[in-house]
Amino acid sequence: MDKIMICIIGSGNWATTIARNVGRNVMNSQTLDEKVPMYVYEEIVDGRKLTEIINTTHINAKYMPNFELPPNIVAVDDIVATARDADIIIFAIPPTFVSSCCKTLLGKVKPTAHAVSLIKGFERGDDGQFVLISQIIMRQLKIPCSVLVGCNLPYELAHDHFAEGTVGCRDQKYYRVLHDIFKSPTFRVVVTEDADCVEICSTLRNIIAFAAGCSDGMELNENTKGGIIRRGFLEMLQFVDVFYPGCRMGTFFESCGISDLVTSCYANRNRKLAEAFVKTGKPLSELEHILIPGHEPLGPVTAELVHHMLKKKGLEDKFPLFTCVYRICTGDYPLHRLVETLIKAREDIFHPLHTFQL
Amino acid sequence: MDKIMICIIGSGNWATTIARNVGRNVMNSQTLDEKVPMYVYEEIVDGRKLTEIINTTHINAKYMPNFELPPNIVAVDDIVATARDADIIIFAIPPTFVSSCCKTLLGKVKPTAHAVSLIKGFERGDDGQFVLISQIIMRQLKIPCSVLVGCNLPYELAHDHFAEGTVGCRDQKYYRVLHDIFKSPTFRVVVTEDADCVEICSTLRNIIAFAAGCSDGMELNENTKGGIIRRGFLEMLQFVDVFYPGCRMGTFFESCGISDLVTSCYANRNRKLAEAFVKTGKPLSELEHILIPGHEPLGPVTAELVHHMLKKKGLEDKFPLFTCVYRICTGDYPLHRLVETLIKAREDIFHPLHTFQL
Repeated sequence: MDKIMICIIGSGNWATTIARNVGRNVMNSQTLDEKVPMYVYEEIVDGRKLTEIINTTHINAKYMPNFELPPNIVAVDDIVATARDADIIIFAIPPTFVSSCCKTLLGKVKPTAHAVSLIKGFERGDDGQFVLISQIIMRQLKIPCSVLVGCNLPYELAHDHFAEGTVGCRDQKYYRVLHDIFKSPTFRVVVTEDADCVEICSTLRNIIAFAAGCSDGMELNENTKGGIIRRGFLEMLQFVDVFYPGCRMGTFFESCGISDLVTSCYANRNRKLAEAFVKTGKPLSELEHILIPGHEPLGPVTAELVHHMLKKKGLEDKFPLFTCVYRICTGDYPLHRLVETLIKAREDIFHPLHTFQL
Repeated sequence: MDKIMICIIGSGNWATTIARNVGRNVMNSQTLDEKVPMYVYEEIVDGRKLTEIINTTHINAKYMPNFELPPNIVAVDDIVATARDADIIIFAIPPTFVSSCCKTLLGKVKPTAHAVSLIKGFERGDDGQFVLISQIIMRQLKIPCSVLVGCNLPYELAHDHFAEGTVGCRDQKYYRVLHDIFKSPTFRVVVTEDADCVEICSTLRNIIAFAAGCSDGMELNENTKGGIIRRGFLEMLQFVDVFYPGCRMGTFFESCGISDLVTSCYANRNRKLAEAFVKTGKPLSELEHILIPGHEPLGPVTAELVHHMLKKKGLEDKFPLFTCVYRICTGDYPLHRLVETLIKAREDIFHPLHTFQL
């Protein structure tokens, strides 16, 4: 039987970090091919090609200079050549490059290949709904796409700190292998079939982290943050129940749910952005570029898109925290509405706890 | 119809804080008696009786000198006289005084009276099970006892900061009135019938806060704390499922569940104690007296009692985090077992998500 071949599309710090895990995990495997091609967008670093540096020194000199890659990670400057023979195609590129990469790869990958997205973010669909990154890959590349999400993973994994990740897997055949290629002694990976829920959780938490940052900016107490996390968690449940019916309650208790939510509310770029937004009074557009250069301000953008979806269904009142964050970002609500929202929020939200498919 | 009379047993900072809310809320009520007797253990403060100071200056000079009480709170130095005519008896005394107060009051209160415990803690029953404070009051006083729990309430309420509390109410007749007497414009009160679950949640969280403090002491990362909260929440669910069957999932999403758990893991005496335990290497018995004078170290004590209950049922392996905290406190486990426990914890714990009565 042919061994399963894995490739990685991307060479940023997240791609390089996960390549270290994958490269180590496939070594000496009976079922996985040892060679792991990694597509590297060719650049010249100190007068040498980046692919050449990686393949000779096993160091990604541009994006992760302090960590060595296993020698079985092979940098390739041609995306089609990278993916052509792969059974598992791992995408770890900025969200803005997803469509163009898929267009290049369409018809050039194995029809039986399975994609895995490690990409944070989403696109706005024509109907105003979220389009999850995995959905974009599936539509464009016409193969199934699973996801791996987790909190602050590049840094934690690179340093062998404890971290948890959740795989939302769209094909039962890959449950075991996706666990085995990503895990490490300090990186706990759990695989669930609830892929939509995994991906949407990791998006929605940014709205709540933004609210937590507003609370920090106003120097409110710990109980306010506790209230934001509680309310936010409930609105996440309810949102998934309304827009992605059929998801499972248990998924919210994986790291993609409760852990990433809590962690984001204490240490996250969106939290930091919101804190500065409140403390400085400067517009978000100005702060983004200073505080999170090169990153989308996922909190405000997610809040806007979520609000659009809620408004279309006349559900703004049922999601007072999500609505409040959106209106604070637009300047329609003064900041003190945040605590008022927590106080006045009605508890009929408990409905999803009854209807969730367990 | 006679108005409902409320009394308060206790005069510490928590009793005095809640007396401010109750006193304000009963004023001008059609159904609640305006006069609220408060039992004050008589002491001499600056040469005057404490009851006399409270009744003339409306200041509890001993336990809460910076906050005024409403004039309808009347200090009484006789516990029987305080409670004799009351329909609702609010207990806010240290746990060690509960039994003696109940003995004094037995047969002297209205047989239709309803107790409310604001007391944190528990006792160890003869069978090695928790005995919740509300159960002690019910058994000894032979009247139903509801509970009010919440995180860091005295300070937050006194300063009109945002806070949430959960009432676990044992008689439907009192749902409305218990909400109405405790709430304030910044204190959000939710009433549920799931009294055991409310009280046990507020106890178990101390074990998890202790684990979070160990993580802080070892200067581990945010993801470790996120993992502790996630795992701890699941073990709370499972513990309630095993030992207090019939509780409702929704209760864990009240403030007594997720909010108090998260808040305790970031700001709580047990967290602080554990952090110092790790950083100094000193025995818990020594640190308790310095760091939390006058308070029981609820994390270690709860872990011990929980461990006893689990061991009796052969369930230690199913609760690896609770077990790990106990064994770290006793010195049986080295600290690094905490992260190992998170990594290795098995996910069959999801069972309670399936069996919980929703």
